[in-house]
Amino acid sequence: MGSLDTHPMSFSASPYDKAAFEPLNPEDVRAYLHKAVDFISDYYTTVESMPVLPNVKPGYLQDELSASPPTHSASFDVTMKELRTSVVPGMMHRASPNFFAFFPSTNSAAAIAGDLIASAMNTVGFTWQASPAATQMEVLALDWLTQLLRLPTTFMNHTSTSHGTGGGVILGTTSEAMLVTLVAARDAALRRSGSVGLSHMTRLVVYAADQTHSTFFKACHLAGFDPANIRSIPTGPETNYGLNPTKLLEVMQADVDVGLVPTYVCATVGTTSSNAVDPVGAIANIATMFNAWVHVDAAYAGSTCICPEFRHHLDGIEHVDSISMSPHKWLLTCLDCTCLYVRDAHRLSDSLETNPEYLKNDATESGEVTDLKDMQVGVGRRFRGLKIWMVMRTYGTAKLQEHIRSDVAMAKMFLDFVRADNRFEVVVPRNFALVCFRIKPSGCMTEEDADEANRQLMEKLNKTGKVYLAHTMVGDKFILQFAVGSSLQEERHVKSAWDLIEKTTSTIME
Amino acid sequence: MGSLDTHPMSFSASPYDKAAFEPLNPEDVRAYLHKAVDFISDYYTTVESMPVLPNVKPGYLQDELSASPPTHSASFDVTMKELRTSVVPGMMHRASPNFFAFFPSTNSAAAIAGDLIASAMNTVGFTWQASPAATQMEVLALDWLTQLLRLPTTFMNHTSTSHGTGGGVILGTTSEAMLVTLVAARDAALRRSGSVGLSHMTRLVVYAADQTHSTFFKACHLAGFDPANIRSIPTGPETNYGLNPTKLLEVMQADVDVGLVPTYVCATVGTTSSNAVDPVGAIANIATMFNAWVHVDAAYAGSTCICPEFRHHLDGIEHVDSISMSPHKWLLTCLDCTCLYVRDAHRLSDSLETNPEYLKNDATESGEVTDLKDMQVGVGRRFRGLKIWMVMRTYGTAKLQEHIRSDVAMAKMFLDFVRADNRFEVVVPRNFALVCFRIKPSGCMTEEDADEANRQLMEKLNKTGKVYLAHTMVGDKFILQFAVGSSLQEERHVKSAWDLIEKTTSTIME
Repeated sequence: MGSLDTHPMSFSASPYDKAAFEPLNPEDVRAYLHKAVDFISDYYTTVESMPVLPNVKPGYLQDELSASPPTHSASFDVTMKELRTSVVPGMMHRASPNFFAFFPSTNSAAAIAGDLIASAMNTVGFTWQASPAATQMEVLALDWLTQLLRLPTTFMNHTSTSHGTGGGVILGTTSEAMLVTLVAARDAALRRSGSVGLSHMTRLVVYAADQTHSTFFKACHLAGFDPANIRSIPTGPETNYGLNPTKLLEVMQADVDVGLVPTYVCATVGTTSSNAVDPVGAIANIATMFNAWVHVDAAYAGSTCICPEFRHHLDGIEHVDSISMSPHKWLLTCLDCTCLYVRDAHRLSDSLETNPEYLKNDATESGEVTDLKDMQVGVGRRFRGLKIWMVMRTYGTAKLQEHIRSDVAMAKMFLDFVRADNRFEVVVPRNFALVCFRIKPSGCMTEEDADEANRQLMEKLNKTGKVYLAHTMVGDKFILQFAVGSSLQEERHVKSAWDLIEKTTSTIME
Repeated sequence: MGSLDTHPMSFSASPYDKAAFEPLNPEDVRAYLHKAVDFISDYYTTVESMPVLPNVKPGYLQDELSASPPTHSASFDVTMKELRTSVVPGMMHRASPNFFAFFPSTNSAAAIAGDLIASAMNTVGFTWQASPAATQMEVLALDWLTQLLRLPTTFMNHTSTSHGTGGGVILGTTSEAMLVTLVAARDAALRRSGSVGLSHMTRLVVYAADQTHSTFFKACHLAGFDPANIRSIPTGPETNYGLNPTKLLEVMQADVDVGLVPTYVCATVGTTSSNAVDPVGAIANIATMFNAWVHVDAAYAGSTCICPEFRHHLDGIEHVDSISMSPHKWLLTCLDCTCLYVRDAHRLSDSLETNPEYLKNDATESGEVTDLKDMQVGVGRRFRGLKIWMVMRTYGTAKLQEHIRSDVAMAKMFLDFVRADNRFEVVVPRNFALVCFRIKPSGCMTEEDADEANRQLMEKLNKTGKVYLAHTMVGDKFILQFAVGSSLQEERHVKSAWDLIEKTTSTIME
């Protein structure tokens, strides 16, 4: 910022003026951020006592804060005060140790520090040259993570220390990972089938189990697949809601028989609803027969594969085309951080490359570097590699494994509580740290009555503010989800939650 | 995190153990983050003396850091040391006051604090219920910004304090804003034209000037538009490289005459190459005749419209369907923060809504709330509203206007320097804070010689590490771009840069 003048038309360049508006004045930065840090540390200390789900009405914030922006500046303390008094009471506190809904958003001191430094450096590493360290750190962090996950070297980047043929990129969400791989697969299938432009587009078909995250079907829609060609393959209890490879084969063959082109199969390791696991290897074998791209969505459960005892869920991964997993879910890295790996990086960049004049540079032209803009939707990108590197660098593999195991152990403990109480049933096997359970029909209770009882139980529990858990439907049954893993969670929180569930159930069953 | 045990198979639930791994221990959080804050404040103090563009080779970081993740944890100080010694020297320093390339990524203490708190709270506000305050803060911040920009109320949300019929959402990049509006426009055009599924897809046509950001053409590709139907309309010096409405009308009418369906027009206010401005009102009038969606990309220059003297660039905005602008470019808000407004929010959500069981809730069903997941690519989302609100709340409108005017004044000063030196020419008029200039051909110098001289000048300048500027091609000429606005920039930096340009040119011209 240079010197300033509030009369726009009479503005003239004047000598450097210390009283000018300096939004990045280093001492202001230090003062504001130290205040923010103390707020955060205090927040973590007290969040346990706040209602997890706030009791606010739509529009409450508009009623509390000014409807218009202020003309004049205020002390940063005023901003922080409004944050404390108006914003915090309206938050759903995912950082609360009493949060058991959806999947946890795990976090850590190292990750927040990395994200903070990225915000301050404000790097935009679209090309290698636009910030060599940012691109190389992303490559390094992704390669480290392949080692933690024991992914084949074919998913690693080709660097001085690795002979990988693939590569990776850090995106915001799994949806973006699905979208860019769908587009790459779409373009490859169009080329293969001899399409002129889009002429064969209505022949391309994509496949996933009906338990696949809804965002997959949205990503197919965004990428322009015909709604009639998006196959949602039914699953059932016989495969614990995992995709049945035999069914997949039948559906794909039937499509080929009528002249359609199988293009993409999405397999999930740890579905959102019940943590089902699609058999990766078997699916890859079938898809390969049809030349279809296989993507593995391991957004949540992928993190467990850093522990040898969970790694078998990725058996066959060497035969898939891409895999994505989100350290912002279960690897202690704050939003947003989804790692996408592809076995052949060129298959992505062939579809997504742009080459505007103002980004041309020698490094790109040498072919020796990765320009990460060519593996994502947009051009601009945050320096996301820093936080995930800081997590791995600071905590190390052993502690990260301990973190996963601790959460799984707490989920097992909760499962034991449920099993010991014969009013409940466990609906699907627990694979990771999600327990799907419900009050089971007993006596003259019908299935519908049980659904209603479970609905009531969830509502009563969540209204207390002392826990928050979500629901799903599995096989037409209303199911409660209990997801362990919020980063401040300890066994005592799981035990307290169970006590509350147990007592609330008693009042409902009366 | 609960208690821990490194023997996975023998793990048993044990009493709460203070020695357990606690990645969010409030005192560790305080300690790590205070260290990060001090690093940042020191960085801003010293970044001026660092080479803007680092002198590192591809793979340098892989050579300096371990190729594999560590097994054991380290002190956070070790991580910070590696950041200082290995990462910082490989950064291109966009925060440097000597950075004049591309567009600046402006930033401020308030924005970084807001982003930091968002990282720590780790909110995932996909639905209103998933964090009421996060959704409402985003709505409030966007509505404040409409007032700063004097957008018509039709772009505001319908809330207790506004009777808007539209709405907005904060996305990561302009590319995402283009993609989601392209998909909405695509679906509407398919419905309108009576398409069965995608049957009419190859008839849909999109339009933009040839100066439009390359990411627009990529977004069209992602959304499945036929490459043959993506019109890049040539521009020239007669319109200062802005889109000529007469040409647009001709092209659209010609398409209609052969049975094609005009679907979407992208107008840019402040192009990346030369800051050209497409005439918004005239374009909207033409597009409306054909029922095509009009999107305005004001990623960079939109921020200037908070000053009355620049607002005329948006004249006619009340007739467009959507507009996006990126406070992470010029409104002191760190990446990523792109604000997308649509005149009819339902036109977005009709295309992008998903409704999985586990996200069903009473608030959504009441129809009284906005679920922001239905206006974006994915489901998960950072709490981006906080930082932009903190910027407006802390600094106020007057200071934000001063910030824009100060940058523009410095650009004018630089322009005066260039004009006073008859070795140079200014290639296009300066509209905002970007100056496009070049060494002009003189004596026996051909146009090719001049291009080569400018290329040499840029390379020599950038190699000094004392400035960094980028280039573009305008009308077949190699042009230097000088973009003022890095948040630590003062007049003295612009003057020093000019001195260096002036001297380096002398050595080249010899």
